[in-house]
Amino acid sequence: MAFKVGLLGLGTVGTGTAEILLDPAGRHPILQEITIKKVGVRSLDKPRKLKFPQGTISTDLTAIVTDPEIDIVVELLGGLEPARSLILQAIAAKKHVVTANKAVIARYGDEIYSAAEKAKVYVLLEGAVGGGIPVIEPLKQSLGANRIKSAIGIVNGTTNYILTQMAAVGADFADVLAEAQQLGYAEADPTADVDGLDAADKITILTSLAFGKSVKREQVLTEGIRQVSITDINYAEKLGFAIKLLAISQNLGDCLQVRVHPTLVPKSHPLASINGVNNAILIEGDPIGQVMFFGPGAGAGPTASAVVADIMNIVGVLKSSTNTENLDPLLSCSHQEYATLLPSEELVTRFYARSLARDVPGVIGHLGTCFGKYNVSLESVVQIGFVGEYSEIVVVTHDVKEGNFRLAIAEISNLDAIHSIPSILRVL
Amino acid sequence: MAFKVGLLGLGTVGTGTAEILLDPAGRHPILQEITIKKVGVRSLDKPRKLKFPQGTISTDLTAIVTDPEIDIVVELLGGLEPARSLILQAIAAKKHVVTANKAVIARYGDEIYSAAEKAKVYVLLEGAVGGGIPVIEPLKQSLGANRIKSAIGIVNGTTNYILTQMAAVGADFADVLAEAQQLGYAEADPTADVDGLDAADKITILTSLAFGKSVKREQVLTEGIRQVSITDINYAEKLGFAIKLLAISQNLGDCLQVRVHPTLVPKSHPLASINGVNNAILIEGDPIGQVMFFGPGAGAGPTASAVVADIMNIVGVLKSSTNTENLDPLLSCSHQEYATLLPSEELVTRFYARSLARDVPGVIGHLGTCFGKYNVSLESVVQIGFVGEYSEIVVVTHDVKEGNFRLAIAEISNLDAIHSIPSILRVL
Repeated sequence: MAFKVGLLGLGTVGTGTAEILLDPAGRHPILQEITIKKVGVRSLDKPRKLKFPQGTISTDLTAIVTDPEIDIVVELLGGLEPARSLILQAIAAKKHVVTANKAVIARYGDEIYSAAEKAKVYVLLEGAVGGGIPVIEPLKQSLGANRIKSAIGIVNGTTNYILTQMAAVGADFADVLAEAQQLGYAEADPTADVDGLDAADKITILTSLAFGKSVKREQVLTEGIRQVSITDINYAEKLGFAIKLLAISQNLGDCLQVRVHPTLVPKSHPLASINGVNNAILIEGDPIGQVMFFGPGAGAGPTASAVVADIMNIVGVLKSSTNTENLDPLLSCSHQEYATLLPSEELVTRFYARSLARDVPGVIGHLGTCFGKYNVSLESVVQIGFVGEYSEIVVVTHDVKEGNFRLAIAEISNLDAIHSIPSILRVL
Repeated sequence: MAFKVGLLGLGTVGTGTAEILLDPAGRHPILQEITIKKVGVRSLDKPRKLKFPQGTISTDLTAIVTDPEIDIVVELLGGLEPARSLILQAIAAKKHVVTANKAVIARYGDEIYSAAEKAKVYVLLEGAVGGGIPVIEPLKQSLGANRIKSAIGIVNGTTNYILTQMAAVGADFADVLAEAQQLGYAEADPTADVDGLDAADKITILTSLAFGKSVKREQVLTEGIRQVSITDINYAEKLGFAIKLLAISQNLGDCLQVRVHPTLVPKSHPLASINGVNNAILIEGDPIGQVMFFGPGAGAGPTASAVVADIMNIVGVLKSSTNTENLDPLLSCSHQEYATLLPSEELVTRFYARSLARDVPGVIGHLGTCFGKYNVSLESVVQIGFVGEYSEIVVVTHDVKEGNFRLAIAEISNLDAIHSIPSILRVL
């Protein structure tokens, strides 16, 4: 018996997915039982790398998601609409759904999971986070025996490439971004990547799987890498850190802390050496300790690998059971209560701050006094360089409440001796 | 409805498994539906960390594997017998089986898989390789869309700890082994670990999952780390390598290559920086590229995490389907044809050799001529130190056939200028 797939979207990942399905030799034998019945595209006129039988490609996406012969709808359109509506229509028509659409799942995951639970169909999304790296599955199944403490990841390859290149060649953000755009590692409009929005989508999804509680996407503290300068990367290097855009989700017991921001990562930390377009996700749980998943976080092949794995998983379940009166609770996602997030001023972390000071006596004393007033204790204070007439002073704090740190910084900004505070970054 | 587990073995991993099952709060909710019906032990007299209700613990292991109320038998006895027989009895009694027993699966996997297929029960074994790191599941499911090219791993924590410590403190193998035994990282009888037998069990299992072909355990080329000296670690370091005990399985198209041996790993390679008791498995496939799984490769907590994940997985399937007339082909393991292994003399790899030479003119010329005669081309030749009256000459070859290299070495050993060749190691 062949299982029939309706594929929505024939861009990079859609083409990669079709290539695997059309060429099953040497892969898992179950792939030989899967056929592409329909491919939905926006325009028939676009030149396509792959040839399909006459009538396979169509612009009538609604007809595909309601086609009675189709078992599994694979949504690879990207963007919010019509992707969300088509996923919901497919579910209503009792199709299982596979998607790599992080934006839709991060915002409408609950609506989609609830509909899927009601319709008794699966919605799988391994390709939505970490490209081909298996990370959704481990959180749902392989690590399910654990109390998860945290999930910390480098989940955006574009920004990791940019930060890696800045450090490697000593170039500025704008120059490396332009180069990344030329190489195809960054989009013409790089906002979603460099402003941390893509990473925030992904940590929203990981959080709900890791902790069994949903997070409102708009509540995720999100800072991108535009403000990271080569000066800061060099200071971080001297202090023993690499700067990475981290997506962090931590279970604090009665609430969660979910955030995306450039972070100074100690060089001894496993995430510090993840370079280029690679992704890595570090999960800490009890009793497992720390496990890390590393690999290519994007691209046609890796993402298609995850999408096809999800298709295979559903086919495996369909083959083993003719009566799916209940969903496998480890494979399904269910609607969950919303988590309480820690207010950002309550966040406890270390900080890095770089200030430009007038060359007057006692300026470090003034800084120390101000920080002390707000219970911010300093791990290191370094005065290394000069920028014109100003001396550059870098401090790294011990763990402090973000609110206290911000109060101290506000007061320090007003000191006569301080010209400006060009950078504030968090430290892992 | 509660699902009932019969647990065989209450050692380190058995106790860790029971601890998770007895304390489900904060973990996946499905754990609340799983109870321990019976625990089988060898002796009732041994003091136990955990308390079970009267009558739970028993020495009648056969009664447990045939108990009609038990759904899942969890075999954590270790060793070949009675583990193998009890697993087969459990399967015959239509129990699903979870095991972390790499020795049994590596040797009797086919017998056990065939019996399980016939009885339509699952045999899951995530805990058998890599402790808590999900690696069995990815090979069976998440990476199933790929043509796997290779699986290369550091899969034995004891030897990785010993090699890491030797490099860190400059100590000899025997001293570090003694220390590891004191710390509990090595057994009183360290043979299985330091001679590579445990790693060979694990790569045998990984190979059958990665390539869909079985491997006869006794055909796996297996060399341990007893012959690795601090001298070689230091030379490797100077040449830009770390020495690791690697378990390697590669698909060469018409045959496989499966081997365990100490290996010089270039420092830029992801496996070179895996230190201490950690494990890591690097899988390369098409189209995913390289993915790596990293974490604690042994210990009660991590291994129990994997064992309980397997139990949960089976319960998830049982909950979703009342008629299991077919097994999910992605979750089951089926009996497979045996792979042809490449004869070791045909293996193509780089080599490292350290020789002690008499201080006579032209010795490097003699070496080069001999290697050249057998088509062994040299990447580097380094003469660094002296050992008494002998000079120490280290060569690293380009990729060569092992057979040719061995012929060259045999001839070189007979040169008047050569006193001895204390070390030969392969290079990744």
